[in-house]
Amino acid sequence: MITSADNARIKEVIRLNTKSKERRERGLFVAEGRKLFLETPDDLKEQIFVSSSFAVREQELLRDYRYEVVDDRLFVKMCDTQTPQGILTVARMPHYRREELLQGTDAPLLLLLEDLQDPGNIGTILRTAEAAGVSGVFLSGRCADPFQPKVIRATMGSVFRVPFCVEQDLCSTAAWLREKQIRLYAAALEGSESFFCNSYTEACAFLIGNEGSGLSPALVKSADQCVRIPMSGRVESLNAAVAAAVFLYEAKRQRK
Amino acid sequence: MITSADNARIKEVIRLNTKSKERRERGLFVAEGRKLFLETPDDLKEQIFVSSSFAVREQELLRDYRYEVVDDRLFVKMCDTQTPQGILTVARMPHYRREELLQGTDAPLLLLLEDLQDPGNIGTILRTAEAAGVSGVFLSGRCADPFQPKVIRATMGSVFRVPFCVEQDLCSTAAWLREKQIRLYAAALEGSESFFCNSYTEACAFLIGNEGSGLSPALVKSADQCVRIPMSGRVESLNAAVAAAVFLYEAKRQRK
Repeated sequence: MITSADNARIKEVIRLNTKSKERRERGLFVAEGRKLFLETPDDLKEQIFVSSSFAVREQELLRDYRYEVVDDRLFVKMCDTQTPQGILTVARMPHYRREELLQGTDAPLLLLLEDLQDPGNIGTILRTAEAAGVSGVFLSGRCADPFQPKVIRATMGSVFRVPFCVEQDLCSTAAWLREKQIRLYAAALEGSESFFCNSYTEACAFLIGNEGSGLSPALVKSADQCVRIPMSGRVESLNAAVAAAVFLYEAKRQRK
Repeated sequence: MITSADNARIKEVIRLNTKSKERRERGLFVAEGRKLFLETPDDLKEQIFVSSSFAVREQELLRDYRYEVVDDRLFVKMCDTQTPQGILTVARMPHYRREELLQGTDAPLLLLLEDLQDPGNIGTILRTAEAAGVSGVFLSGRCADPFQPKVIRATMGSVFRVPFCVEQDLCSTAAWLREKQIRLYAAALEGSESFFCNSYTEACAFLIGNEGSGLSPALVKSADQCVRIPMSGRVESLNAAVAAAVFLYEAKRQRK
């Protein structure tokens, strides 16, 4: 049992939880909790840590795995959550090539996220994307790190099932998608057509912008069309995850 | 200028920020930031506090108001946010009678929230509800306090514009709504009909349950019909605010 906060492996987990650079360089991230342990594909499980009381309580769950037992109080320090469940999986990052995000369907349904900052939004969007049958999600390089603990938890496991890529230049991604005959719809706030008026049954992608400033003019320009979610009252904009959900479920409804 | 943390008014604001009981007893809550200051109707503004640097910077904004200036460092301690904008409004709670949530339309569109725990979800739902043209939201008494700072911020001001009531017994609210010829749809996960199959153009309400456990069997029983959001992949459920948005925007689409 590990009992010392100076243990090199404990320190490594804390770095993976807190440092984006460490995650990127190692190709690893941390998935906390029982559900995410179950959702992590076995071939991506790199290391498993459990608290000493979890090890006693959950022998059945752990039977087929090698794992490291950590003193209860030290385990809490390794975790990003305040009241951890007692299990933590160090997972290898899933990697996809651009092309893979268009596969498995005649009419890909895609999402492009530009500079989203809220980890909860990114996680919720990945979860909603899987549910709506999205074939892939492209994130701009200035989005919050999709492998940070809050994103991972909010995905509820979808991070392992929805193909996604982080792209340094989303405008060039947009151009590449248009070459592939994918119609690009930019989520806009004003002056454009209600999104209810279009058909989304053919290959298409929705472009969602930053929570505060929306899409950049350059990315809007690279889209085929601007579409607006109609809003009653005095609401100026919707939460980014809500906007993504409304677009994606209209596409799903039309495609049913 | 207030400079002491022992000042009674400073202490009162901190209590209003942190204690649900204090808010309830006083009928007051705290709306932080510039946008929420602007969104708070003047007749609900009870007190305004600004940091000393905000007072210098934003004389134009404050011209028509009486306000209290607080030392910059002390102001930070009054706030719930880490990096406050420098203005904080103590607001009176808007109050609605049940009947008011059905007014202003021939076909009310309502939302019933049972035991939602995440303040961000409740705030986002109020914001989305206004945008979707909802006539009113009923919250069960075991929902997170809708006047806590995180909810208020997530509403982006909709807290002042969407009529809502906290109800001690949501089952009796449901029965009352059915007497009023309002059709109740319970959001369910399994075995029920896809929500896309129904018409929501008549008076109706959507029932959304707790993030972890969903709707209680008693409330499901009080509904006219269970409806399910179809989900691809291996997603077990959607985020509560996302589910509410998907239901409400389908109703809005049909009602356009």
